[in-house]
Amino acid sequence: MARDPRREQMLDAAARLFSRKGYAATSVNELAAAAGFTKAGLYYHVRGKEDLLEAICAESVAAILDDVEQAVAGDANPQRQLSAVIEAHVRFFHAHPERLTVLNLEMTRLSAPRRSKIVRLERRYLDALRGVLARGMDSGELARLDPSVAAFSLLSIVNGLNNWYDPKGPVGCDALIEHVKRIYLRGIVASAQPA
Amino acid sequence: MARDPRREQMLDAAARLFSRKGYAATSVNELAAAAGFTKAGLYYHVRGKEDLLEAICAESVAAILDDVEQAVAGDANPQRQLSAVIEAHVRFFHAHPERLTVLNLEMTRLSAPRRSKIVRLERRYLDALRGVLARGMDSGELARLDPSVAAFSLLSIVNGLNNWYDPKGPVGCDALIEHVKRIYLRGIVASAQPA
Repeated sequence: MARDPRREQMLDAAARLFSRKGYAATSVNELAAAAGFTKAGLYYHVRGKEDLLEAICAESVAAILDDVEQAVAGDANPQRQLSAVIEAHVRFFHAHPERLTVLNLEMTRLSAPRRSKIVRLERRYLDALRGVLARGMDSGELARLDPSVAAFSLLSIVNGLNNWYDPKGPVGCDALIEHVKRIYLRGIVASAQPA
Repeated sequence: MARDPRREQMLDAAARLFSRKGYAATSVNELAAAAGFTKAGLYYHVRGKEDLLEAICAESVAAILDDVEQAVAGDANPQRQLSAVIEAHVRFFHAHPERLTVLNLEMTRLSAPRRSKIVRLERRYLDALRGVLARGMDSGELARLDPSVAAFSLLSIVNGLNNWYDPKGPVGCDALIEHVKRIYLRGIVASAQPA
């Protein structure tokens, strides 16, 4: 997906404010200032605060989904597909941690029609992940577990990063990816498979 | 911990309301009615809405912590200790799902001194878990991973249950515990260990 760097900066700046002050307490003036825009400049890009919240949530899920769907299409091995899912999600989080915080904590502020667009994207991500798991279980490469428990255990690990992980802390992005792969993939491969 | 059943019912009723309507939108009248009290009856137990929120959060963490500390003291094997942690947390969630939803989503509504009491309990839980992991890594029974990533991966799975798991759905409490043990424990045992 080609992304406009100025727009990406605006979304990161808005996500930083929303994640620190909360969506409700953040003003359009603050959003414009944080993004280095005049208020008029901000209104050139978006119609208001809710547009920004929607864009942060929708474009975050869409960006991860895009990588996940490409990775799943490009490799038929379920363990490598799952590795690619982990890598896509963790790399996006590492680059834009506040966006996932906002997605986790503030998405409920969106009106129902805006929220349902994002829920549809999340559903596609979940379906892609459950598909990988189901095919791996059918082929015997993955353990026969409940697909929802297996899928949401991984999603909980990667979506929970904003609660504790500091992208500037001692564990770098690559090490974090290796840890999540190690913990999750070994947990779900079939017993006879090498981890 | 001996618990007053009438008080427990009151906390569950309040947690149900807070998790459905949000803390801010819930009135004392609604809380009293949901718990089967008059307003005066409710005020016999608590001084107000914030007391209820604090009790839900603090007593949930305290109850899990109690089970976790007992389990860790009662067995020296790190895999069995971790199994007991998983079991304590999942069983509490299964019995009181709305309390953990409130803890996850509404704890920030508490004043700073009330919140810091709960943060101290959470820290004790985290320390207990990190202690088990560190001892298991030192003895070679667990893989040498970053203790924070290992601890928070488990906490993310069990704390994330309220986002997707339906206690009345097809996966029962025991099956859920077995799944989490299978996924997480196999993920972190040392390679030479049988999972």
